[in-house]
Amino acid sequence: MATLFLTRRDVRGLLDMRDVINAVEQALSDWATGKAIMPPKAYLVLDKGDIRAMPAAAAGGAGMKWANVHPGNRALGLPTVMAVLVYNDPATGYPLAIMDATEITAYRTGAASAIASKYLARRDARTLGLVGAGRQAYTQLQAHVELFAFESVRVFDISRAAVDRLIESFPGHPLQASAIEEAAASDIVCTLTTATRPVVKREWVVPGSHINAIGADAAGKQELDPAILRESIVVVDDLRQASGGGEINVPLREGLFRSEDVYGTLGEVIAGLKPGRTDDAAATVFDSTGVAVEDIATAELVYRRAAERGGFLSLDFVEE
Amino acid sequence: MATLFLTRRDVRGLLDMRDVINAVEQALSDWATGKAIMPPKAYLVLDKGDIRAMPAAAAGGAGMKWANVHPGNRALGLPTVMAVLVYNDPATGYPLAIMDATEITAYRTGAASAIASKYLARRDARTLGLVGAGRQAYTQLQAHVELFAFESVRVFDISRAAVDRLIESFPGHPLQASAIEEAAASDIVCTLTTATRPVVKREWVVPGSHINAIGADAAGKQELDPAILRESIVVVDDLRQASGGGEINVPLREGLFRSEDVYGTLGEVIAGLKPGRTDDAAATVFDSTGVAVEDIATAELVYRRAAERGGFLSLDFVEE
Repeated sequence: MATLFLTRRDVRGLLDMRDVINAVEQALSDWATGKAIMPPKAYLVLDKGDIRAMPAAAAGGAGMKWANVHPGNRALGLPTVMAVLVYNDPATGYPLAIMDATEITAYRTGAASAIASKYLARRDARTLGLVGAGRQAYTQLQAHVELFAFESVRVFDISRAAVDRLIESFPGHPLQASAIEEAAASDIVCTLTTATRPVVKREWVVPGSHINAIGADAAGKQELDPAILRESIVVVDDLRQASGGGEINVPLREGLFRSEDVYGTLGEVIAGLKPGRTDDAAATVFDSTGVAVEDIATAELVYRRAAERGGFLSLDFVEE
Repeated sequence: MATLFLTRRDVRGLLDMRDVINAVEQALSDWATGKAIMPPKAYLVLDKGDIRAMPAAAAGGAGMKWANVHPGNRALGLPTVMAVLVYNDPATGYPLAIMDATEITAYRTGAASAIASKYLARRDARTLGLVGAGRQAYTQLQAHVELFAFESVRVFDISRAAVDRLIESFPGHPLQASAIEEAAASDIVCTLTTATRPVVKREWVVPGSHINAIGADAAGKQELDPAILRESIVVVDDLRQASGGGEINVPLREGLFRSEDVYGTLGEVIAGLKPGRTDDAAATVFDSTGVAVEDIATAELVYRRAAERGGFLSLDFVEE
C-alpha cells in the first residue's frame, strides 16, 4: 500500500468540470437519501482566523477537508483560504491520497451552482449574469457553459481589470462587460462578492430568473435584497450552514426571512424528493455554502484518475 | 513557502521521548489554563470503522489529527489505527507539514502516562507493572524509564512471545515475565489491553499504587474492577471523552461510579490548580483517552526538528 501526494498543480491537471458536475450531482442526491454522510464540521478558532475539519463519505470514498480562513493573509501575499484533503478507503481507513483541495473547492462550488441552475433555472435560459469577476467567477462560468448555451454572459465587477481578465480567459464565449443592473437582470445570475450588505436590488431581477448566491460564507455576509428571498423559492445546500453563514443568515437574524420559508435542499430536488422549477414565472435562489460531500465526491474523481494515470508522488506514508 | 512531508519512518527518527514528555506536560497544563484549545472531535462513522478529526492549538502550533479505527484491519494485514496529521501555522493557516501520526500517538500516550505517574504515583515508586505487552507497552515503558529508576518491571501478557519480545527490546532494564497478579501489585501499573471486562482485581492492587488505565478507548471497554475506581483518586485527561469511552465509561453506565467522583484533569494537577498525591496510602488512577493537544504539541516538536535538520521532502503543495 502507498499514499498518493497531489499538489495543487497536480490536482488542477486531473480535474474535469463535466465529471465534477456529474459526481457532485450524484453525491448531493445520495446525501439527501442517506447514502452519503456528512457529520458536522469541527472548527478550530484561532486569533487571526480559523481552520475547519469537513469530513464526509460519498461516492464510495471517505475523507476530510481541512481548510483555513485567514482574512489577513492577502496583506501577507498568501491566499485567504488553503485546503488539504485526506482521502481514505472507507473499508480500512487507509489514507489513499493526500491532496491540495483549493482547486477541488473551486470546481465543486462551480459545479453545485450549475446543478442548481439545471434544476431551478428556466429551461430556455439564454443569459448569464456574473456579479463579481474574481476567482470564483472562473469555475462558475466553466460549470455553466457545460450545461447551458448562453447568448450572452454579462460580467460586472468593481474592478474593470478583473472583468477584462475574465473575458480574455474565455475566448469564443459571448462575455461582455456590463453594469451590475444588467448582470442582475439575466436569466441565471451568480453573485460572487464578499459583500456584507445587499448589492443586488429587487427591481433589477427579471421574472423567472434563478440566482446562485455564492458569496455569503460567514455570519454577517449577504448579497441579495431580502425582498428577493421573500418572493423566491429558496433552496439551500445545507440548512444549518445556510442559517449560520449563508445568504439567508442576516435576513433570518433580522426577522426578514424564516427558516420555514426554505423550500428544501438541492439534494432533495436532485433526488426527486421535491420538484424543481414548475413555473416559468417563479423566481428561484440557491443559497450555496459548500458541503463536504461535494469535496469528497470530487476527491474520489481526482484520486481515481491519478491512480489510473500514474506518475504521481507515492510514499509508504503510514507504514512501519 | 513549502509544506514538509514526513512519513512514519521520518517521524520516528525525529521523536525524542524526553522532549515529548516535556511538551505534553506543558500542553496539558496550558489546556487547563485556557492557553491551548481543543474543540470537540468530528466523527465520520463508516460501516467497518470510523475516522475522527482531532483539531487543537497548542505549543504555538495548530493542526488536526485524522485517525481511523477499523477493528477488522488486523485480519487484512493492516494496522487497526492509522493517522495523518496536518500541522499549520496558526497565524496564517499555512500547512507547514503533513506527517504520519501513528508514532506521535504512541509517544504522546506513553508520555501522558509517565506524566500522570510523576504527579500521582508515590515518589519512592520502585516497581512498574505492565498488564499487556503489545505495541503500547513499548512507549509506556520508554516514557516511564525517563522519569523513574525501577528495581523491577513486571510484564504480563496472554502471549508469552509478546512478553519475550518486549524484554528483549529493553536490554539493561530490569524486566521480568510475571503473572498478572504480580504485575498488578506494582507501585505503578499500566493497563494496556483491549479488555471489555475487568482484568485487574481489587485485591491484587497494593496500597498507595498508581494505575494508568490506557486500554479503554471506546464505549464498552474496561480493564479495572470498578471497586478500584471507587476507592481511588481518579484523574482523567478529558472528562467528556473518559465518560464516553475511557475506563470510567462502563462503571458510569452501570451506576457503579459517578462523574462527580472524578477528582479532576491531569492538566489541572500539572498546572497546580489541584494538588497531586498528598497521601502515600491513597490509590490513584489516571484514565487516559488521548487528547489532540498532546498530538499537536508533539507534532510541533517534530516539525521544528525536521525544519532544523533539513533534508526531508518539501513541496509547494497549496501554491498555484
